[in-house]
Amino acid sequence: MLALEEKIKKEGKVLPGGILKVGSFLNQQIDISFLMEMGREISRLYENCGVTRIFTIESSGIAIAVAAATYMNVPVVFARKNKSNNIANDVYTSRVSSFTHGNTYDAVVSREYIKADDTVLIIDDFLARGSALVGLIDMVKQSGAKIAGAAIAIEKGFQGGGDNIRRTGIRIESLALIENMTDNEIIFKR
Amino acid sequence: MLALEEKIKKEGKVLPGGILKVGSFLNQQIDISFLMEMGREISRLYENCGVTRIFTIESSGIAIAVAAATYMNVPVVFARKNKSNNIANDVYTSRVSSFTHGNTYDAVVSREYIKADDTVLIIDDFLARGSALVGLIDMVKQSGAKIAGAAIAIEKGFQGGGDNIRRTGIRIESLALIENMTDNEIIFKR
Repeated sequence: MLALEEKIKKEGKVLPGGILKVGSFLNQQIDISFLMEMGREISRLYENCGVTRIFTIESSGIAIAVAAATYMNVPVVFARKNKSNNIANDVYTSRVSSFTHGNTYDAVVSREYIKADDTVLIIDDFLARGSALVGLIDMVKQSGAKIAGAAIAIEKGFQGGGDNIRRTGIRIESLALIENMTDNEIIFKR
Repeated sequence: MLALEEKIKKEGKVLPGGILKVGSFLNQQIDISFLMEMGREISRLYENCGVTRIFTIESSGIAIAVAAATYMNVPVVFARKNKSNNIANDVYTSRVSSFTHGNTYDAVVSREYIKADDTVLIIDDFLARGSALVGLIDMVKQSGAKIAGAAIAIEKGFQGGGDNIRRTGIRIESLALIENMTDNEIIFKR
């Protein structure tokens, strides 16, 4: 999605440690018309895939999941990040290590919100090493639902998570795929 | 908003300690067409108020803020919940005690996303004792921006937070206002 690449080049900030900050339009501050454009593109990519449910994880996945849901007209379910040791019984859960925040948590979602007869589209804002996405896939598998694939706003391809998951046969569509980035330059893969 | 009252009566669950669970349509799982209806109603309530920015707090405020923003065509900004002691310099911050989660955190937002010439509409999913809303109001005041008011999906009026804030002169519109609730009954105030 060329418009997203241009937005990243214009407004994104590369921070030490391979962090890309896009707070000005995707997290912290959300450019609403641009968000809806991203949602529409995700809807186009997964049309005719029989998606019955969108699954994401708090917090910054929620906005883009809601945007896509308005075009696909399916419910959004989001996993919570549970940092305590208390996990209820009636949930699916998976352990996730966050690259950006340098912490580990249990992603948790109530069993009642993903059913075996669902076809699930997983949506998130970022894909780097892929730990959150692996966790979301794991939870869908626990439910017995079918996975249509994943849609990501920005994939940092050079961190390898996306390709590792694609090798397992899961479809991933990234609206912008960064091949490499330095303080001065962000190079996209088409 | 009668449709919301009916939804709460039908799908809401009253848990011990005055907790109302609406995970089936507002948090965890989001009914997208209903979410957009709530967003449209908020837009109607605050039309002609010159709103330039919607301000909310992660996580479950984001979806309804995005829904309202699609009708009002303004950016959404969301505060983060910071549980560590590290707070950057270039932020507005306010201490919040969560009734639902029984914890305390610093709400944080980057100064660059709320400016003195903004007119801010604050949106959140729940209002109980009002600590999160007081924190959001506090951060907007720090920025020097004007507050158009607040829009809340569900206010638990019997916990008093909303009325305490209204007494300070801030407009609060709640789409559903619960006067009282027991295990068997939820009574709304019109």
